[in-house]
Amino acid sequence: MFPITTAERLVCVRFPYLSRHLVTKPTGLKSDTSTTTNNVNQSITYDVSNKQKLYITDPISPGSIFFLPNGTKIFNKLIQFMKQQQGRLKFGYQEVITPLIFKKSLWEQSGHWENYKDDMFKVEGTDASKETYGLKPMNCPGHCVIYNRFDHSYNELPLRYSDFSPLHRNEASGALSGLTRVRKFHQDDGHIFCTKEQVESEILNCLKLVDLCYGKVFKFNTDPTTTYSINLSTRPKDHYIGELQTWDHAEGVLKNVLEKSGKKWQLNEGDGAFYGPKLDIMVPDHTGKSHQVATIQLDFQLPIRFNLKYKDRDNTYKTPIMIHRAVFGSVERFLALLIDHYKGKWPFWLNPYQAMVIPINTKDVKQVEACQILKEQLAGENELEEESDLKPIPLNNFRFNVDVDERSEPLGYRIKDAILKHYSYLIIIGEEEVKTGKYSIRTRDDRKLDHLTGKEIYDMFCNLERNYK
Amino acid sequence: MFPITTAERLVCVRFPYLSRHLVTKPTGLKSDTSTTTNNVNQSITYDVSNKQKLYITDPISPGSIFFLPNGTKIFNKLIQFMKQQQGRLKFGYQEVITPLIFKKSLWEQSGHWENYKDDMFKVEGTDASKETYGLKPMNCPGHCVIYNRFDHSYNELPLRYSDFSPLHRNEASGALSGLTRVRKFHQDDGHIFCTKEQVESEILNCLKLVDLCYGKVFKFNTDPTTTYSINLSTRPKDHYIGELQTWDHAEGVLKNVLEKSGKKWQLNEGDGAFYGPKLDIMVPDHTGKSHQVATIQLDFQLPIRFNLKYKDRDNTYKTPIMIHRAVFGSVERFLALLIDHYKGKWPFWLNPYQAMVIPINTKDVKQVEACQILKEQLAGENELEEESDLKPIPLNNFRFNVDVDERSEPLGYRIKDAILKHYSYLIIIGEEEVKTGKYSIRTRDDRKLDHLTGKEIYDMFCNLERNYK
Repeated sequence: MFPITTAERLVCVRFPYLSRHLVTKPTGLKSDTSTTTNNVNQSITYDVSNKQKLYITDPISPGSIFFLPNGTKIFNKLIQFMKQQQGRLKFGYQEVITPLIFKKSLWEQSGHWENYKDDMFKVEGTDASKETYGLKPMNCPGHCVIYNRFDHSYNELPLRYSDFSPLHRNEASGALSGLTRVRKFHQDDGHIFCTKEQVESEILNCLKLVDLCYGKVFKFNTDPTTTYSINLSTRPKDHYIGELQTWDHAEGVLKNVLEKSGKKWQLNEGDGAFYGPKLDIMVPDHTGKSHQVATIQLDFQLPIRFNLKYKDRDNTYKTPIMIHRAVFGSVERFLALLIDHYKGKWPFWLNPYQAMVIPINTKDVKQVEACQILKEQLAGENELEEESDLKPIPLNNFRFNVDVDERSEPLGYRIKDAILKHYSYLIIIGEEEVKTGKYSIRTRDDRKLDHLTGKEIYDMFCNLERNYK
Repeated sequence: MFPITTAERLVCVRFPYLSRHLVTKPTGLKSDTSTTTNNVNQSITYDVSNKQKLYITDPISPGSIFFLPNGTKIFNKLIQFMKQQQGRLKFGYQEVITPLIFKKSLWEQSGHWENYKDDMFKVEGTDASKETYGLKPMNCPGHCVIYNRFDHSYNELPLRYSDFSPLHRNEASGALSGLTRVRKFHQDDGHIFCTKEQVESEILNCLKLVDLCYGKVFKFNTDPTTTYSINLSTRPKDHYIGELQTWDHAEGVLKNVLEKSGKKWQLNEGDGAFYGPKLDIMVPDHTGKSHQVATIQLDFQLPIRFNLKYKDRDNTYKTPIMIHRAVFGSVERFLALLIDHYKGKWPFWLNPYQAMVIPINTKDVKQVEACQILKEQLAGENELEEESDLKPIPLNNFRFNVDVDERSEPLGYRIKDAILKHYSYLIIIGEEEVKTGKYSIRTRDDRKLDHLTGKEIYDMFCNLERNYK
């Protein structure tokens, strides 16, 4: 996920389940960096963010993003999208909210303190106890704590936790850059605890989720047969742990799954994590360069370190297998890829600039008022009701990002300005529109005018958002 | 918000804008602790959480809540509720996502390092720079950083940021308890930057939001005239800063606002923060004891410390006034109050147990299948579509918490069990129901049976959720 340093390379050998978060090629000998993602075009990201006020960074907290209101809107939509998909029966993730700081002893048990300390932030209170904590770089140990709190029977598995916690890793300050080399980031993280027999169907379901995401909604490639590609990374030649037999079984499972999925995939021989094989999902940026987004990894080690158990059918206690997976990967980095891909021309559902309402004559009170009323209607602001009867806005209310440009500038200028700001729709209201209640509406790309009522525009917008258009 | 220690009491004198977060009576001489909230009945909270699996705590991270899937559902609903209300035009909060760690120099500028260090967690990397950070105990300094990044004109104000970041405060470990004395917590935090002239209308809007919350949705008191009460805390007798004239003006504004609101309020003379007067909103727990939830505070100090400016109509630069406000206060503590209030019998919209579907004869495949199909329909799981045509679930999809009890236990036992678990609705499906497609449905409190189709049940549920019932 992040480019690999020598220290990290060492860590990956000694410390398996970190690699998902750190590197794409933990044990590879090739110096091919085309899959690392700090290369997402920084100037595009920077430029779009500045124009659209998506985020800022500040030396007061290097590597931590300040998401401005527009960036927060996109961030929240992405999370909301993923929660909706993950909530489906077959994926069945249950979201949890876990602590950010854990005592040193947890990180010692997980192995982080020994292997990863230099890349973690140490947290200390100044009270008498002088306890030392680690600011979490990943969610897995926290999920193991929850798993271990309860007794588990085989028929409760697979158990799938999702978590969108902020994570911190102490990247060298010189390496920090925009959204791709950060110290604070979020993952659409998920951990599946399952039996050996369930691994295949779980991986298959992970791939379905990937397909939903990259095949149907986020199409980084216009060619539908290659919207994303899959790498199967198998047992490294030298550095690996565990039995050959287990490896062969696991690789067989992954191959089976890939065959069943009918997807094209590439063998990346010897390039797995040393604890198990993995699938990496790659999407191209606008130059065609490939970037890893999702990853699906089998982990036989962490369940042993945390002594995780479930009671099997035969009343014996067995150790579950853990699958680490993320679909966006780092949400911050995914956002960088989206910015690179759309270059500020967001699809409607993600656009912080969904519609600009423009009165033709800004001195005509009726026109300006009609614009304001339409804006409130589309923005779901419901401010027209009587104050004394202010009602709570429902949870599932549609709320669109709509502005009114009533500056005393020429109409042509304001239209051009809205197009340059990449508003998805321009709605123009003049005398005729006020009279008929049918508003002229056009997209940023097409001069063709439609004439729709406020209700029709609202319904159209709802429909676009429902379909991730 | 949290009970006051001697150290905190000192801090409140020297360090104004902390008091909102720490104490209800920063300078009061009375030892009345009825307004502190660590007294929310712990045994009820603990008992309900255990039965309903809402959250756990663990010595590996003392004072940090692990929200289990059910607790996370409630937590997310509360946040979603607040975001919807805050997004309205008149409230107009813009959500931002801000860093969690900031360099020491920020906390020095804000005054925390001098005054609050002992209650903060110190964060350090192990890299060469050996930079020291503070894990944020509140959001205000981060919002000042954003404010200061841009030039502001008078016509951009009021500017309102909301933030739901996790906050950390190093409470003494002996004092930690359940949801009310924690080290990691979330606020539905908001900061308003406004001109002197806007203070009145902003406070009035804050009160409207409070009214929406405590008058219309969360009614802690069945008597509609006293669902919540308001304290106006005025200038302390001895410890205060600023001009008497400013105080008189500010208190006059708050009194005016209260009169205009038509709400009952009590004068809490001399009990304001020393930097300005404030309004505290109080709700009763089930024993009638009063607890502070929302607070609205005027702050003249932080804008000066951060040298915040806006360009006024006359082209001079002026210092804005900052209003700190939270409506739930600490979401964790608010949750404790809700648990105390509902005792596990959640209203439908918040209930992690919304409906239990029960086949009369668990050996009848048709009945069990009908139950599963209904569950999927209500849970918005859409798993019935063809796999090859798996569609993304829309953002604003309704998704209800529905389970099926197909254990081979007697029907009466399963009905009783569902009622004891406080499922809002019980849906019973037998031979007759399968045939007609009309299902028997009852509430947990009323034996009266309705007969509704799946679609009718779904619509009823949507309606309940839309209306926060």
